[in-house]
Amino acid sequence: MRISELAAASDVPVATIKFYLRTGLLHDGRQTAPRQADYDDGHLARLRLIRALLGAGGLSVAAAGEVLRQLDDPPESGHDLLGAAHHALDAGAQPKQEQQQADHPRADALLEAWGWQIDPEDHNARRGLERALQGLEDGGFEPPAGFLDMYAAAMRELATREVEQVPINPPDAMRYVVLGTVLVEPLLLALRRLAQQDASRRMFSGPGAPAAQSGGA
Amino acid sequence: MRISELAAASDVPVATIKFYLRTGLLHDGRQTAPRQADYDDGHLARLRLIRALLGAGGLSVAAAGEVLRQLDDPPESGHDLLGAAHHALDAGAQPKQEQQQADHPRADALLEAWGWQIDPEDHNARRGLERALQGLEDGGFEPPAGFLDMYAAAMRELATREVEQVPINPPDAMRYVVLGTVLVEPLLLALRRLAQQDASRRMFSGPGAPAAQSGGA
Repeated sequence: MRISELAAASDVPVATIKFYLRTGLLHDGRQTAPRQADYDDGHLARLRLIRALLGAGGLSVAAAGEVLRQLDDPPESGHDLLGAAHHALDAGAQPKQEQQQADHPRADALLEAWGWQIDPEDHNARRGLERALQGLEDGGFEPPAGFLDMYAAAMRELATREVEQVPINPPDAMRYVVLGTVLVEPLLLALRRLAQQDASRRMFSGPGAPAAQSGGA
Repeated sequence: MRISELAAASDVPVATIKFYLRTGLLHDGRQTAPRQADYDDGHLARLRLIRALLGAGGLSVAAAGEVLRQLDDPPESGHDLLGAAHHALDAGAQPKQEQQQADHPRADALLEAWGWQIDPEDHNARRGLERALQGLEDGGFEPPAGFLDMYAAAMRELATREVEQVPINPPDAMRYVVLGTVLVEPLLLALRRLAQQDASRRMFSGPGAPAAQSGGA
Protein backbone atom coordinates (compact mmCIF):
# COMPACT_ATOMS: atom_id res chain seq x y z
CA MET A 1 0.00 0.00 0.00
CA ARG A 2 1.04 3.63 -0.43
CA ILE A 3 1.96 5.86 2.50
CA SER A 4 -1.46 7.56 2.34
CA GLU A 5 -3.15 4.16 2.61
CA LEU A 6 -0.85 3.18 5.48
CA ALA A 7 -1.86 6.43 7.20
CA ALA A 8 -5.55 5.66 6.72
CA ALA A 9 -5.17 2.04 7.90
CA SER A 10 -3.15 2.97 11.00
CA ASP A 11 -4.88 6.26 11.85
CA VAL A 12 -1.42 7.87 12.00
CA PRO A 13 -0.93 11.07 9.92
CA VAL A 14 1.42 10.88 6.91
CA ALA A 15 3.70 13.55 8.41
CA THR A 16 4.08 11.44 11.58
CA ILE A 17 4.84 8.30 9.55
CA LYS A 18 7.52 10.26 7.67
CA PHE A 19 9.00 11.33 11.00
CA TYR A 20 9.15 7.69 12.15
CA LEU A 21 10.83 6.75 8.84
CA ARG A 22 13.42 9.53 9.21
CA THR A 23 14.26 8.59 12.81
CA GLY A 24 14.46 4.89 11.93
CA LEU A 25 11.66 3.79 14.26
CA LEU A 26 9.85 2.49 11.17
CA HIS A 27 11.74 0.56 8.45
CA ASP A 28 11.66 1.88 4.87
CA GLY A 29 9.07 0.63 2.39
CA ARG A 30 9.95 -1.15 -0.85
CA GLN A 31 10.91 1.52 -3.42
CA THR A 32 8.57 1.30 -6.44
CA ALA A 33 9.37 4.64 -8.11
CA PRO A 34 11.83 7.53 -7.40
CA ARG A 35 9.46 9.18 -4.93
CA GLN A 36 7.15 6.28 -4.10
CA ALA A 37 7.39 3.27 -1.81
CA ASP A 38 5.20 0.31 -1.02
CA TYR A 39 4.27 -0.60 2.58
CA ASP A 40 2.87 -3.87 3.90
CA ASP A 41 1.22 -5.37 6.98
CA GLY A 42 4.60 -5.50 8.71
CA HIS A 43 4.72 -1.70 8.56
CA LEU A 44 1.20 -1.52 9.92
CA ALA A 45 2.01 -3.79 12.89
CA ARG A 46 5.19 -1.82 13.57
CA LEU A 47 3.27 1.48 13.52
CA ARG A 48 0.80 0.12 16.08
CA LEU A 49 3.70 -0.98 18.27
CA ILE A 50 5.39 2.45 17.99
CA ARG A 51 2.11 4.16 18.93
CA ALA A 52 1.69 1.83 21.92
CA LEU A 53 5.22 2.51 23.19
CA LEU A 54 4.92 6.30 22.76
CA GLY A 55 1.28 6.53 23.86
CA ALA A 56 0.13 4.13 26.57
CA GLY A 57 3.74 3.14 27.35
CA GLY A 58 4.72 6.77 27.87
CA LEU A 59 8.19 6.32 26.33
CA SER A 60 10.21 9.09 24.69
CA VAL A 61 11.14 8.71 21.01
CA ALA A 62 14.72 7.90 22.09
CA ALA A 63 13.60 5.21 24.54
CA ALA A 64 11.17 3.72 22.02
CA GLY A 65 14.00 3.58 19.47
CA GLU A 66 16.20 1.70 21.94
CA VAL A 67 13.37 -0.72 22.78
CA LEU A 68 12.69 -1.41 19.10
CA ARG A 69 16.40 -2.01 18.40
CA GLN A 70 16.47 -4.58 21.21
CA LEU A 71 13.33 -6.25 19.86
CA ASP A 72 14.92 -6.46 16.39
CA ASP A 73 18.14 -7.93 17.69
CA PRO A 74 17.59 -9.70 21.03
CA PRO A 75 20.42 -11.22 23.12
CA GLU A 76 20.80 -15.01 23.11
CA SER A 77 20.49 -15.96 26.77
CA GLY A 78 17.30 -16.03 28.79
CA HIS A 79 18.33 -14.02 31.80
CA ASP A 80 20.18 -11.38 29.75
CA LEU A 81 16.93 -10.57 27.97
CA LEU A 82 15.49 -9.00 31.06
CA GLY A 83 18.56 -6.87 31.62
CA ALA A 84 18.55 -5.74 27.98
CA ALA A 85 14.84 -4.95 28.11
CA HIS A 86 15.15 -2.95 31.30
CA HIS A 87 18.24 -1.21 30.00
CA ALA A 88 16.36 -0.16 26.86
CA LEU A 89 13.55 1.23 29.00
CA ASP A 90 15.92 3.00 31.39
CA ALA A 91 17.66 4.68 28.46
CA GLY A 92 14.90 7.25 28.19
CA ALA A 93 13.60 7.25 31.74
CA GLN A 94 16.54 8.40 33.84
CA PRO A 95 18.56 11.59 33.68
CA LYS A 96 21.78 10.92 31.75
CA GLN A 97 24.05 12.01 34.57
CA GLU A 98 22.45 9.49 36.92
CA GLN A 99 22.84 6.46 34.68
CA GLN A 100 25.41 3.97 35.96
CA GLN A 101 25.92 6.02 39.11
CA ALA A 102 26.81 3.53 41.81
CA ASP A 103 25.32 5.52 44.68
CA HIS A 104 22.13 3.83 45.93
CA PRO A 105 22.60 3.01 49.62
CA ARG A 106 18.93 2.74 50.63
CA ALA A 107 18.06 0.52 47.68
CA ASP A 108 21.02 -1.75 48.51
CA ALA A 109 19.97 -2.04 52.15
CA LEU A 110 16.39 -2.99 51.25
CA LEU A 111 17.42 -5.48 48.56
CA GLU A 112 19.78 -7.15 51.01
CA ALA A 113 17.11 -7.27 53.72
CA TRP A 114 14.68 -8.90 51.28
CA GLY A 115 17.35 -11.29 49.93
CA TRP A 116 16.80 -10.24 46.31
CA GLN A 117 19.57 -11.23 43.90
CA ILE A 118 20.28 -8.26 41.63
CA ASP A 119 23.21 -7.98 39.22
CA PRO A 120 25.80 -5.92 41.16
CA GLU A 121 26.73 -4.13 37.91
CA ASP A 122 23.16 -3.06 37.20
CA HIS A 123 23.15 0.34 38.82
CA ASN A 124 20.19 1.59 36.77
CA ALA A 125 17.68 -0.74 38.35
CA ARG A 126 18.93 0.14 41.84
CA ARG A 127 18.93 3.87 41.00
CA GLY A 128 15.27 3.56 40.01
CA LEU A 129 14.43 2.32 43.50
CA GLU A 130 16.74 4.86 45.13
CA ARG A 131 15.08 7.71 43.20
CA ALA A 132 11.63 6.53 44.25
CA LEU A 133 12.71 6.35 47.91
CA GLN A 134 14.32 9.80 47.62
CA GLY A 135 11.08 11.11 46.10
CA LEU A 136 9.10 9.86 49.10
CA GLU A 137 11.52 11.58 51.46
CA ASP A 138 11.61 14.84 49.47
CA GLY A 139 7.83 14.89 49.33
CA GLY A 140 7.68 14.45 53.09
CA PHE A 141 5.69 11.24 52.68
CA GLU A 142 6.56 8.30 54.86
CA PRO A 143 4.69 5.08 54.01
CA PRO A 144 3.02 3.49 57.07
CA ALA A 145 5.05 0.87 58.97
CA GLY A 146 5.45 -2.34 57.00
CA PHE A 147 4.25 -0.84 53.71
CA LEU A 148 7.62 -1.04 51.94
CA ASP A 149 7.77 -4.74 52.75
CA MET A 150 4.16 -5.16 51.65
CA TYR A 151 4.82 -3.46 48.29
CA ALA A 152 7.93 -5.57 47.79
CA ALA A 153 6.12 -8.82 48.60
CA ALA A 154 3.24 -7.92 46.25
CA MET A 155 5.60 -7.10 43.37
CA ARG A 156 7.67 -10.23 44.04
CA GLU A 157 4.59 -12.39 43.79
CA LEU A 158 3.52 -10.77 40.51
CA ALA A 159 7.05 -10.91 39.07
CA THR A 160 7.47 -14.59 39.89
CA ARG A 161 4.31 -15.47 38.00
CA GLU A 162 5.25 -13.13 35.13
CA VAL A 163 8.73 -14.59 34.70
CA GLU A 164 7.33 -18.14 34.67
CA GLN A 165 5.43 -17.21 31.52
CA VAL A 166 8.40 -15.88 29.52
CA PRO A 167 8.61 -17.81 26.20
CA ILE A 168 11.77 -19.87 25.56
CA ASN A 169 12.55 -18.65 22.01
CA PRO A 170 14.73 -15.46 22.36
CA PRO A 171 12.87 -13.13 19.93
CA ASP A 172 9.51 -14.04 21.50
CA ALA A 173 10.98 -13.75 24.97
CA MET A 174 12.40 -10.29 24.27
CA ARG A 175 9.07 -9.11 22.92
CA TYR A 176 7.27 -10.57 25.92
CA VAL A 177 9.61 -9.02 28.47
CA VAL A 178 9.83 -5.58 26.88
CA LEU A 179 6.13 -5.21 26.17
CA GLY A 180 5.16 -6.93 29.40
CA THR A 181 7.23 -4.38 31.28
CA VAL A 182 6.39 -1.17 29.46
CA LEU A 183 2.75 -1.81 28.55
CA VAL A 184 1.70 -3.50 31.81
CA GLU A 185 3.08 -0.62 33.91
CA PRO A 186 0.27 1.83 32.99
CA LEU A 187 -2.21 -1.03 33.48
CA LEU A 188 -1.04 -1.62 37.05
CA LEU A 189 -1.16 2.08 37.90
CA ALA A 190 -4.65 2.51 36.41
CA LEU A 191 -5.85 -0.54 38.33
CA ARG A 192 -4.38 0.74 41.59
CA ARG A 193 -6.20 4.08 41.28
CA LEU A 194 -9.50 2.39 40.45
CA ALA A 195 -9.02 -0.09 43.29
CA GLN A 196 -8.35 2.81 45.69
CA GLN A 197 -11.59 4.43 44.61
CA ASP A 198 -13.47 1.16 45.10
CA ALA A 199 -11.84 0.58 48.51
CA SER A 200 -12.61 4.15 49.56
CA ARG A 201 -16.25 3.78 48.55
CA ARG A 202 -16.53 0.56 50.52
CA MET A 203 -14.93 2.17 53.57
CA PHE A 204 -16.82 5.47 53.55
CA SER A 205 -20.26 3.96 52.79
CA GLY A 206 -22.33 2.49 55.60
CA PRO A 207 -23.42 -1.17 55.47
CA GLY A 208 -26.84 -0.13 54.05
CA ALA A 209 -25.34 1.97 51.23
CA PRO A 210 -25.39 0.71 47.65
CA ALA A 211 -21.63 0.26 47.65
CA ALA A 212 -21.97 -2.51 50.25
CA GLN A 213 -22.98 -4.96 47.52
CA SER A 214 -19.50 -4.71 45.93
CA GLY A 215 -17.99 -8.17 45.55
CA GLY A 216 -14.41 -9.46 45.58
CA ALA A 217 -11.89 -8.91 42.79
CA MET B 1 16.76 33.54 54.42
CA ARG B 2 17.50 35.14 51.06
CA ILE B 3 16.77 33.44 47.75
CA SER B 4 20.46 32.56 47.33
CA GLU B 5 20.42 30.85 50.73
CA LEU B 6 17.19 29.06 49.87
CA ALA B 7 18.90 27.85 46.67
CA ALA B 8 21.88 26.56 48.63
CA ALA B 9 19.71 24.86 51.28
CA SER B 10 17.42 23.20 48.72
CA ASP B 11 20.02 22.46 46.04
CA VAL B 12 17.68 24.12 43.52
CA PRO B 13 19.20 26.88 41.29
CA VAL B 14 18.00 30.47 41.88
CA ALA B 15 16.68 30.70 38.29
CA THR B 16 14.55 27.59 38.88
CA ILE B 17 13.20 28.98 42.16
CA LYS B 18 12.26 32.19 40.34
CA PHE B 19 10.44 30.11 37.72
CA TYR B 20 8.46 28.32 40.48
CA LEU B 21 7.60 31.73 42.02
CA ARG B 22 6.42 33.12 38.66
CA THR B 23 4.25 30.06 37.92
CA GLY B 24 2.80 30.11 41.44
CA LEU B 25 4.06 26.63 42.38
CA LEU B 26 5.99 28.33 45.20
CA HIS B 27 4.39 31.07 47.32
CA ASP B 28 6.06 34.50 47.52
CA GLY B 29 8.50 35.31 50.29
CA ARG B 30 7.97 38.14 52.79
CA GLN B 31 9.03 41.41 51.08
CA THR B 32 11.86 43.04 53.07
CA ALA B 33 13.05 45.59 50.50
CA PRO B 34 11.93 46.65 46.97
CA ARG B 35 13.90 43.83 45.32
CA GLN B 36 14.45 41.51 48.26
CA ALA B 37 12.31 38.92 50.00
CA ASP B 38 12.72 36.65 52.97
CA TYR B 39 12.09 32.90 52.73
CA ASP B 40 11.54 30.40 55.55
CA ASP B 41 11.42 26.67 56.24
CA GLY B 42 7.93 26.53 54.71
CA HIS B 43 9.45 27.54 51.38
CA LEU B 44 12.15 24.93 51.78
CA ALA B 45 9.62 22.14 52.45
CA ARG B 46 7.50 23.30 49.52
CA LEU B 47 10.53 23.29 47.21
CA ARG B 48 11.33 19.69 48.21
CA LEU B 49 7.73 18.73 47.51
CA ILE B 50 7.79 20.44 44.08
CA ARG B 51 11.01 18.62 43.21
CA ALA B 52 9.52 15.30 44.31
CA LEU B 53 6.39 15.80 42.19
CA LEU B 54 8.34 16.89 39.09
CA GLY B 55 11.24 14.47 39.59
CA ALA B 56 10.41 11.07 41.06
CA GLY B 57 6.69 11.67 40.57
CA GLY B 58 7.19 12.44 36.89
CA LEU B 59 4.48 15.13 36.78
CA SER B 60 4.38 18.03 34.34
CA VAL B 61 4.53 21.58 35.75
CA ALA B 62 0.79 21.93 34.99
CA ALA B 63 -0.11 18.71 36.80
CA ALA B 64 2.13 19.58 39.76
CA GLY B 65 0.40 22.98 39.97
CA GLU B 66 -3.01 21.29 40.08
CA VAL B 67 -1.84 18.82 42.75
CA LEU B 68 -0.42 21.64 44.90
CA ARG B 69 -3.66 23.66 44.59
CA GLN B 70 -5.63 20.64 45.82
CA LEU B 71 -3.20 20.16 48.70
CA ASP B 72 -3.61 23.83 49.69
CA ASP B 73 -7.39 23.68 49.56
CA PRO B 74 -8.66 20.11 50.09
CA PRO B 75 -12.34 19.11 49.81
CA GLU B 76 -14.21 18.40 53.06
CA SER B 77 -15.42 14.83 52.65
CA GLY B 78 -13.33 11.72 52.94
CA HIS B 79 -14.26 9.93 49.75
CA ASP B 80 -14.15 13.10 47.60
CA LEU B 81 -10.50 13.51 48.51
CA LEU B 82 -9.52 10.53 46.46
CA GLY B 83 -11.45 11.78 43.44
CA ALA B 84 -9.89 15.25 43.78
CA ALA B 85 -6.43 13.77 44.15
CA HIS B 86 -6.80 11.52 41.12
CA HIS B 87 -8.36 14.33 39.13
CA ALA B 88 -5.39 16.56 39.89
CA LEU B 89 -3.03 13.83 38.74
CA ASP B 90 -5.04 13.09 35.59
CA ALA B 91 -4.99 16.77 34.66
CA GLY B 92 -1.48 16.47 33.34
CA ALA B 93 -1.37 12.80 32.45
CA GLN B 94 -4.02 12.38 29.77
CA PRO B 95 -4.38 14.07 26.40
CA LYS B 96 -6.83 16.96 26.73
CA GLN B 97 -9.19 15.69 24.04
CA GLU B 98 -9.56 12.38 25.89
CA GLN B 99 -10.51 13.86 29.26
CA GLN B 100 -14.12 13.22 30.22
CA GLN B 101 -14.64 11.10 27.12
CA ALA B 102 -17.27 8.54 28.09
CA ASP B 103 -16.03 5.85 25.72
CA HIS B 104 -14.37 3.05 27.71
CA PRO B 105 -16.20 -0.20 26.96
CA ARG B 106 -13.47 -2.66 27.94
CA ALA B 107 -12.76 -0.91 31.22
CA ASP B 108 -16.49 -0.92 32.04
CA ALA B 109 -16.79 -4.63 31.29
CA LEU B 110 -13.84 -5.53 33.52
CA LEU B 111 -14.95 -3.30 36.40
CA GLU B 112 -18.39 -4.84 36.28
CA ALA B 113 -16.96 -8.36 36.19
CA TRP B 114 -14.83 -7.56 39.25
CA GLY B 115 -17.70 -5.82 41.03
CA TRP B 116 -15.70 -2.62 41.58
CA GLN B 117 -17.79 0.43 42.50
CA ILE B 118 -16.47 3.40 40.50
CA ASP B 119 -18.15 6.80 40.26
CA PRO B 120 -20.13 6.61 36.96
CA GLU B 121 -19.20 10.26 36.28
CA ASP B 122 -15.49 9.64 36.66
CA HIS B 123 -14.55 8.97 33.07
CA ASN B 124 -10.89 9.83 33.61
CA ALA B 125 -10.15 6.87 35.84
CA ARG B 126 -11.90 4.51 33.43
CA ARG B 127 -10.11 6.08 30.45
CA GLY B 128 -6.79 5.37 32.16
CA LEU B 129 -7.64 1.67 32.24
CA GLU B 130 -9.05 1.76 28.70
CA ARG B 131 -5.88 3.41 27.41
CA ALA B 132 -3.72 0.79 29.09
CA LEU B 133 -5.81 -2.02 27.59
CA GLN B 134 -5.69 -0.33 24.17
CA GLY B 135 -1.91 -0.04 24.53
CA LEU B 136 -1.62 -3.78 25.13
CA GLU B 137 -3.69 -4.48 22.03
CA ASP B 138 -1.84 -1.95 19.85
CA GLY B 139 1.48 -3.39 21.00
CA GLY B 140 0.28 -6.87 20.06
CA PHE B 141 0.81 -8.06 23.64
CA GLU B 142 -1.80 -10.28 25.19
CA PRO B 143 -1.25 -11.02 28.89
CA PRO B 144 -1.39 -14.78 29.67
CA ALA B 145 -4.78 -16.17 30.69
CA GLY B 146 -5.88 -14.99 34.12
CA PHE B 147 -3.25 -12.25 34.34
CA LEU B 148 -5.69 -9.33 34.16
CA ASP B 149 -7.60 -10.82 37.10
CA MET B 150 -4.34 -11.44 38.94
CA TYR B 151 -3.19 -7.83 38.46
CA ALA B 152 -6.59 -6.56 39.58
CA ALA B 153 -6.62 -8.75 42.69
CA ALA B 154 -3.08 -7.68 43.62
CA MET B 155 -3.91 -3.97 43.24
CA ARG B 156 -7.19 -4.40 45.13
CA GLU B 157 -5.35 -5.95 48.05
CA LEU B 158 -2.79 -3.13 48.12
CA ALA B 159 -5.45 -0.42 47.72
CA THR B 160 -7.58 -1.79 50.54
CA ARG B 161 -4.66 -1.64 52.95
CA GLU B 162 -3.64 1.80 51.66
CA VAL B 163 -7.11 3.31 52.07
CA GLU B 164 -7.37 1.96 55.63
CA GLN B 165 -4.40 4.16 56.51
CA VAL B 166 -5.80 7.46 55.19
CA PRO B 167 -5.78 10.03 58.04
CA ILE B 168 -9.16 11.45 59.16
CA ASN B 169 -8.27 15.17 59.14
CA PRO B 170 -8.92 16.45 55.53
CA PRO B 171 -5.65 18.36 54.92
CA ASP B 172 -3.59 15.40 56.16
CA ALA B 173 -5.80 13.00 54.20
CA MET B 174 -5.37 14.98 50.97
CA ARG B 175 -1.63 15.05 51.40
CA TYR B 176 -1.56 11.34 52.15
CA VAL B 177 -3.70 10.40 49.17
CA VAL B 178 -1.99 12.66 46.63
CA LEU B 179 1.56 11.83 47.66
CA GLY B 180 0.71 8.20 48.31
CA THR B 181 -0.57 7.95 44.76
CA VAL B 182 2.02 9.92 42.84
CA LEU B 183 5.15 9.08 44.81
CA VAL B 184 4.39 5.40 45.43
CA GLU B 185 3.77 4.76 41.71
CA PRO B 186 7.46 4.95 40.72
CA LEU B 187 8.28 2.86 43.82
CA LEU B 188 5.97 0.06 42.69
CA LEU B 189 7.36 0.10 39.15
CA ALA B 190 10.97 0.07 40.37
CA LEU B 191 10.17 -2.82 42.73
CA ARG B 192 8.45 -4.79 39.95
CA ARG B 193 11.49 -4.53 37.67
CA LEU B 194 13.88 -5.54 40.44
CA ALA B 195 11.59 -8.40 41.44
CA GLN B 196 11.49 -9.60 37.83
CA GLN B 197 15.27 -9.61 37.77
CA ASP B 198 15.39 -11.56 41.03
CA ALA B 199 12.74 -14.02 39.80
CA SER B 200 14.56 -14.47 36.51
CA ARG B 201 17.82 -15.16 38.30
CA ARG B 202 16.15 -17.75 40.52
CA MET B 203 14.54 -19.39 37.50
CA PHE B 204 17.54 -19.44 35.17
CA SER B 205 20.09 -20.52 37.79
CA GLY B 206 20.44 -24.19 38.64
CA PRO B 207 19.94 -25.36 42.23
CA GLY B 208 23.71 -25.26 42.84
CA ALA B 209 24.14 -21.68 41.61
CA PRO B 210 24.71 -18.86 44.12
CA ALA B 211 21.27 -17.40 43.35
CA ALA B 212 19.62 -20.47 44.89
CA GLN B 213 20.30 -19.09 48.36
CA SER B 214 17.93 -16.14 47.70
CA GLY B 215 15.28 -15.94 50.41
CA GLY B 216 11.68 -14.75 50.39
CA ALA B 217 10.58 -11.11 50.29
